[in-house]
Amino acid sequence: MKRIIYTTYIIIISTITLVAQRPPAISSPDVHSDHSITFRYFSRNAKSVTLSGEFLSAPVALTKDTSGIWSVTVPPVKPDIYPYSFWVDSVQIADPNNAYIFANERFKRSIVDVPGDQPLIHSLQNVPHGKVSYRYYKSATLGTTRPLLIYTPPGFNANGKTKYPVLYLIHGGSDTEETWTKVGRANLIVDNLIAQGKAKPMIIVMPYGNVRPSPMPDFTKDVINDIIPFVEANYPVHKDSKHRAVAGFSVGGGQTLNIGLTNTDKFAYVCSYAPFTATDEFRQNFTNWTPNAKAMNKQLKLFTISVGTDDFLYESVQQNIAMFQEKKIKLKPLIVSGGHTWMNCKLFLANSLQQLFK
Amino acid sequence: MKRIIYTTYIIIISTITLVAQRPPAISSPDVHSDHSITFRYFSRNAKSVTLSGEFLSAPVALTKDTSGIWSVTVPPVKPDIYPYSFWVDSVQIADPNNAYIFANERFKRSIVDVPGDQPLIHSLQNVPHGKVSYRYYKSATLGTTRPLLIYTPPGFNANGKTKYPVLYLIHGGSDTEETWTKVGRANLIVDNLIAQGKAKPMIIVMPYGNVRPSPMPDFTKDVINDIIPFVEANYPVHKDSKHRAVAGFSVGGGQTLNIGLTNTDKFAYVCSYAPFTATDEFRQNFTNWTPNAKAMNKQLKLFTISVGTDDFLYESVQQNIAMFQEKKIKLKPLIVSGGHTWMNCKLFLANSLQQLFK
Repeated sequence: MKRIIYTTYIIIISTITLVAQRPPAISSPDVHSDHSITFRYFSRNAKSVTLSGEFLSAPVALTKDTSGIWSVTVPPVKPDIYPYSFWVDSVQIADPNNAYIFANERFKRSIVDVPGDQPLIHSLQNVPHGKVSYRYYKSATLGTTRPLLIYTPPGFNANGKTKYPVLYLIHGGSDTEETWTKVGRANLIVDNLIAQGKAKPMIIVMPYGNVRPSPMPDFTKDVINDIIPFVEANYPVHKDSKHRAVAGFSVGGGQTLNIGLTNTDKFAYVCSYAPFTATDEFRQNFTNWTPNAKAMNKQLKLFTISVGTDDFLYESVQQNIAMFQEKKIKLKPLIVSGGHTWMNCKLFLANSLQQLFK
Repeated sequence: MKRIIYTTYIIIISTITLVAQRPPAISSPDVHSDHSITFRYFSRNAKSVTLSGEFLSAPVALTKDTSGIWSVTVPPVKPDIYPYSFWVDSVQIADPNNAYIFANERFKRSIVDVPGDQPLIHSLQNVPHGKVSYRYYKSATLGTTRPLLIYTPPGFNANGKTKYPVLYLIHGGSDTEETWTKVGRANLIVDNLIAQGKAKPMIIVMPYGNVRPSPMPDFTKDVINDIIPFVEANYPVHKDSKHRAVAGFSVGGGQTLNIGLTNTDKFAYVCSYAPFTATDEFRQNFTNWTPNAKAMNKQLKLFTISVGTDDFLYESVQQNIAMFQEKKIKLKPLIVSGGHTWMNCKLFLANSLQQLFK
């Protein structure tokens, strides 16, 4: 009986398909239990379809069957969440059959989640879950209403007596306020670490960090003058530097250094991931910089810079680490393998979360 | 000085672009003050690029300049939010430079927001804003943890004495739990209507309505046995039928009829938008249906079916309206112009919201 109903359902869906003139429903990606993955794409007219993915060292070709469905199965990959895209002739596209999109303003890629044999730190596990709230705040600095995402931990009570520490977590350039949850799974990582007793319950604020056409220093002002006051007016949070952290990736990693190190009275935790620092703001802040290292090291409970050895910014990040060390600023580098990727972002975040507010 | 910094910023971004081997940053879409829109796409190799959009009666061609940027400006369109896509040779794609994606499992289209000269009902206005929370619940019916979105109105206090009515709002087939907010702007519509005193403050629950590979009747069970109990355990809500509504579009409009009309003890408000009803569940429920119309009409405070005259389901919806009327079920049809679109969804929702819980 179930089978009959299901067959009927398929016929119905096919009917919708015909009416709306959509391509046939195909399943892509299909992640197999051995961690191999099958990707599929429908096109009768394409001359070639290839797959690019951050789990591949080079693109691989899909082959077409007689019904116009192109497919390829890639050998087992290391469990993780990976961005990928198809190249259809000369056109790079997201996988039309995959709802999971890399949140970004400049490209459209899909993401594939390859689960581990044991749950990974970013997996949806059977633990209490926090909430991610989509909100708006008014930025007097930028003269507009802007979006931000706010994670509150399991058991959070907006009107309770418990006060929380806050992590301000910034995406990469051309990413959006959603990238840290949609691609980085920040909410699930912290859910899992809290459940394991490895992270303190905290609020995580994920703002939209791109400021256009204004220059980037405006974002530092926006965080200090608009976002933090909004959070503190609307959430039960501690307001001292020891309960406030800033972290970010790539352009957001550079913003993190600018925001955090010029405001050590406000942030005792500064976690910069693969920072992009070839910016006017960074030069203004850190060229001929003469910090009072002793005072700063007292204020900073954790200052970490993380990067992968294959990151295209690796050399630049190493130079910055050397610069800060030369100025006697206490710094915990985290150097891992891998490139300028969100696979590494998740790892960096999971590492930082276990050191915050302790 | 500002100019110099901005120029520097552009150079930096160009540097990132080169390093990451991305196409040049271009702005698309650009909505002009007269409601005309310029669309742009970069490709040196494409032979043709056309634009399809729900504001167009037929696709229009883009033309290429010497730098490989294709563009077209379409004449002023009626202010609204429209899905669109590019066809690059034979490949349909979302606009790579537009972060606003139509949340869907089967296609990737972008959306363009053409503001009105006066704010539209779905515009981000200077009014108090509710929150949209991304959450997980355990579905015993479906044996898995599933996502849902929950809108709470401005001033909501999870631990306060105020109890709220709840609208369960279901997306169309192949849409996702995000489509009602990302494309339908349900949160902004209700923010605006609450601010104008035209809608009651309410909670809106937006579940993920697709059930695969199981048949659709499972979703009715999931709503009744899993989602409603989750909401009632976690939010201060009224638990009687007069404070509970169900609404949905397309496949979700069919689900709405199945869920609502077989549970009038639980839902006094049933709002079905362009329902797709060629389903086994609908046939089982409503073929040879012999309702006690008098009792049902007493239970239902509002039963509405909405559809556009150009909707591909128009005839089918009219037949269903006739069927319900023949059974003497009191029904408020809302027949408007337009097709099976999210432009109409916003209109239908705005209409219903002003009639709920009054």
